[in-house]
Amino acid sequence: MAFEYHLSDIVDFLGADMEKSLDVVITGIASLDNAIGGDISFIANPRHAKSLSKCRASAVIMPRGYEKDFSGICVYSSHPYLSYAKLSKWFDTAIISPSGVHPSAVVANDASIGANTSLGPNVVIESGVSIAEGSQIGANTFIGARSTIGKDCRIKSNVSVYHDITIGDSVTIHSGAVIGSDGFGFAPNGKGGWEKIHQLGGVLIGNKVEIGACSTVDRGAIDDTVIGDGVILDNHVMIAHNVKVGENTAMAAFAGIAGSAKIGKNCFFAGDAACLGHLEVADNVQITARSYVTKPIKKAGSYSNGGLPLMESKKWRRNAVIFGKLEKLAKSMTGKILDKEY
Amino acid sequence: MAFEYHLSDIVDFLGADMEKSLDVVITGIASLDNAIGGDISFIANPRHAKSLSKCRASAVIMPRGYEKDFSGICVYSSHPYLSYAKLSKWFDTAIISPSGVHPSAVVANDASIGANTSLGPNVVIESGVSIAEGSQIGANTFIGARSTIGKDCRIKSNVSVYHDITIGDSVTIHSGAVIGSDGFGFAPNGKGGWEKIHQLGGVLIGNKVEIGACSTVDRGAIDDTVIGDGVILDNHVMIAHNVKVGENTAMAAFAGIAGSAKIGKNCFFAGDAACLGHLEVADNVQITARSYVTKPIKKAGSYSNGGLPLMESKKWRRNAVIFGKLEKLAKSMTGKILDKEY
Amino acid sequence: MAFEYHLSDIVDFLGADMEKSLDVVITGIASLDNAIGGDISFIANPRHAKSLSKCRASAVIMPRGYEKDFSGICVYSSHPYLSYAKLSKWFDTAIISPSGVHPSAVVANDASIGANTSLGPNVVIESGVSIAEGSQIGANTFIGARSTIGKDCRIKSNVSVYHDITIGDSVTIHSGAVIGSDGFGFAPNGKGGWEKIHQLGGVLIGNKVEIGACSTVDRGAIDDTVIGDGVILDNHVMIAHNVKVGENTAMAAFAGIAGSAKIGKNCFFAGDAACLGHLEVADNVQITARSYVTKPIKKAGSYSNGGLPLMESKKWRRNAVIFGKLEKLAKSMTGKILDKEY
Repeated sequence: MAFEYHLSDIVDFLGADMEKSLDVVITGIASLDNAIGGDISFIANPRHAKSLSKCRASAVIMPRGYEKDFSGICVYSSHPYLSYAKLSKWFDTAIISPSGVHPSAVVANDASIGANTSLGPNVVIESGVSIAEGSQIGANTFIGARSTIGKDCRIKSNVSVYHDITIGDSVTIHSGAVIGSDGFGFAPNGKGGWEKIHQLGGVLIGNKVEIGACSTVDRGAIDDTVIGDGVILDNHVMIAHNVKVGENTAMAAFAGIAGSAKIGKNCFFAGDAACLGHLEVADNVQITARSYVTKPIKKAGSYSNGGLPLMESKKWRRNAVIFGKLEKLAKSMTGKILDKEY
Repeated sequence: MAFEYHLSDIVDFLGADMEKSLDVVITGIASLDNAIGGDISFIANPRHAKSLSKCRASAVIMPRGYEKDFSGICVYSSHPYLSYAKLSKWFDTAIISPSGVHPSAVVANDASIGANTSLGPNVVIESGVSIAEGSQIGANTFIGARSTIGKDCRIKSNVSVYHDITIGDSVTIHSGAVIGSDGFGFAPNGKGGWEKIHQLGGVLIGNKVEIGACSTVDRGAIDDTVIGDGVILDNHVMIAHNVKVGENTAMAAFAGIAGSAKIGKNCFFAGDAACLGHLEVADNVQITARSYVTKPIKKAGSYSNGGLPLMESKKWRRNAVIFGKLEKLAKSMTGKILDKEY
Repeated sequence: MAFEYHLSDIVDFLGADMEKSLDVVITGIASLDNAIGGDISFIANPRHAKSLSKCRASAVIMPRGYEKDFSGICVYSSHPYLSYAKLSKWFDTAIISPSGVHPSAVVANDASIGANTSLGPNVVIESGVSIAEGSQIGANTFIGARSTIGKDCRIKSNVSVYHDITIGDSVTIHSGAVIGSDGFGFAPNGKGGWEKIHQLGGVLIGNKVEIGACSTVDRGAIDDTVIGDGVILDNHVMIAHNVKVGENTAMAAFAGIAGSAKIGKNCFFAGDAACLGHLEVADNVQITARSYVTKPIKKAGSYSNGGLPLMESKKWRRNAVIFGKLEKLAKSMTGKILDKEY
């Protein structure tokens, strides 16, 4: 797709400053190394600034101080990475579907469909659903009975939203995601098997939430599972029943939060990080890659229990064997070298 | 949705006893802390009993011995949690679709569709499929050629069941799940690449199985992959080709069983627990969170190799460095402190 | 399904040799232990050869040297496992859909649909899509605007391919997979929340790639995410934005590659193996199960940091406690037993 923007409009939109008064037409956005004439680029990180001298972009978004290194037009922003983020949507080639209901969509008579919404091909909307203005529902997506979807949402193709789910405004849900599936609740039936506990709660998703492809958010057992405003979830994330995730918390791929855990605001769960059930995690906690929360965390900070040093597999196996004997090793030292505290 | 049940009917259904002969109308089910008048609640765990005195529920399911603490109606059950599980379905708001085939469903002429079944919008049923009475197939779900689905199943929306799959009675499969995809079988082609091994087996799923959202069960390479009666799988579970899972085994989210492993009955795989391929695990084995089976397990019990103590990331990194030197550390001790056995 | 092949045709197809000149009809393929009359079997591994004497197959593919142990027809191949792989497709019961566009498919007028393609029920093809000859698109699958799919692909049911994706020839994508979802890119907005970075790149998938069920490949932030020719990905694999995966690399279930990592050719990531972002991994690297790459790998070989010895959970917990004190333990030894190097 072809884009043509006046650089002056970009600068105005970003609230940035422009050194040179030259206005040019910008036709693309690119990294410093790959930019060509017509592109706008940006310094996301000061260590990338060394690419400036060879950068062929027509303009670069940068903090003040790098103008000597770049021969093109300098666009000054105190937060170039944020400016890039804001500008990125001007170059998004994702289709904005025209408003309307595709003839192949199956929409219950009593559903409430707002203005300027788009329901794609083969979308299925059950009874009592409400979809507010400006939202787009992608092809082959299912919205269960009585669920409500706020304004300006982007629900992509092949998403499943079960019944009685509440989704706020400006929420994006990627393909393959499932919202409101049954929590994993079963009681031993006394005969070696399981009695299903029907999951009666819903899911309450705030505003400006993004949920990645193939991620799942289970409905609550009795009360709702809650995803706060501004939460961002990568692909393959699992939010179990009754979990509460605080505002603006971010979780990378394969993060998993077990049932009834309560995660604070502005937390970050790195890839494959997790939290056991029924635990509470304070605000501003970071869990590093492949670590998982095994006890309540009351204090902001970074916590780990995963991520041992990578080494050749042969060496690993020898060290791993010793791990299995750590208790013995420590005991044999106790009373000889180590004090009682140990 | 509005529910109205006579408490006496509930007590009869549960085979429970009721202290007071008052019959009341029950309109909801709730936890002890959140219940309001009209609700029935339950003591799932003795440590919750302290909430009884303030509980506003009209009735509480409890073992005998707590009646002094509760001013409402006591419903006695020797297994209150199981009673709650059984009762939960009375309050389930999931839609039971009316029988019939939605006009938008695409159903092969030679498919056998039982009485009182429901095929939702855009369901696709290929040739030779058999669906027994009382089963419900959700919107946009695909059932491949010659697969059979037993009685009273609940296959939710956007599920994919490949060809030649056999599913028992009373099976629930949640959205995004995939049953019968190809096992991961490839032979080196001698030129640095891979020759696909076509996966010729099927999947055999027993009765009363539940499979969570976005979980996958691959078809066998030659023989079938087998999921026993009563197995319950959470979301994002992976069952590879040729695996056998014994009756009533439970697996939490992200559990993964590699090819040709054989898991016993009544096992429990916690979140992210796994088993390497071609191993056999006895009955009644528990694998703790993020642990994985690296050798055959012949004896019932709980096994681990994951879950180190959570600590501040700085401290973790220092300990992790030492881990990489464990062999050296142990060797330096050998002959000085530790005996030969070490 | 019933198969009937002349053994002589099989031998010709495989370029194998047959000892006995008897031609027989082969009706199935099976393992040595389960084969019955009419079946052809194979020795995948020399240690299976002990099953030969009791094997009831009509013919067995084997290397020379085992003919004394088998009373049926010996088919000689220097690579029996590869021969089996090649032959397996003769016994595949997956439906090859007839060419044509199902009446329920929704296909944009300007889409280019090649000869001998099959678009299944409820397939949705957006504007500008190109699908080359011989490809099959399964039921309820979505192909976004301007994406191109090469020749002889098998895209299964309920797959989502976003806009501007390029897929090569002979690619298989299993159900529930998502190609081209947004990379996980957000900039802190300076107010505690996140500004979405629109993901402007695409995904470039080579030839002969296989992508498993519920796997996801995110689109690039600016440039493309790239999957090389011959790459094979199991189920639940995550390829983040801007990742490059080299030719013929294989990844087992739950493998995850974080953003902008560059993985070499002919690598193997075992189950749940991962790579942190922005790292480069050389060709011919193996990452063992549940290990993950924490630093660049420049040399071929096998690397680990996951997989401690499995033990009874009680014992594990005691050892794990000591792990948390490793630094202390090591320090207390330093200067007494260990040299400075430690």
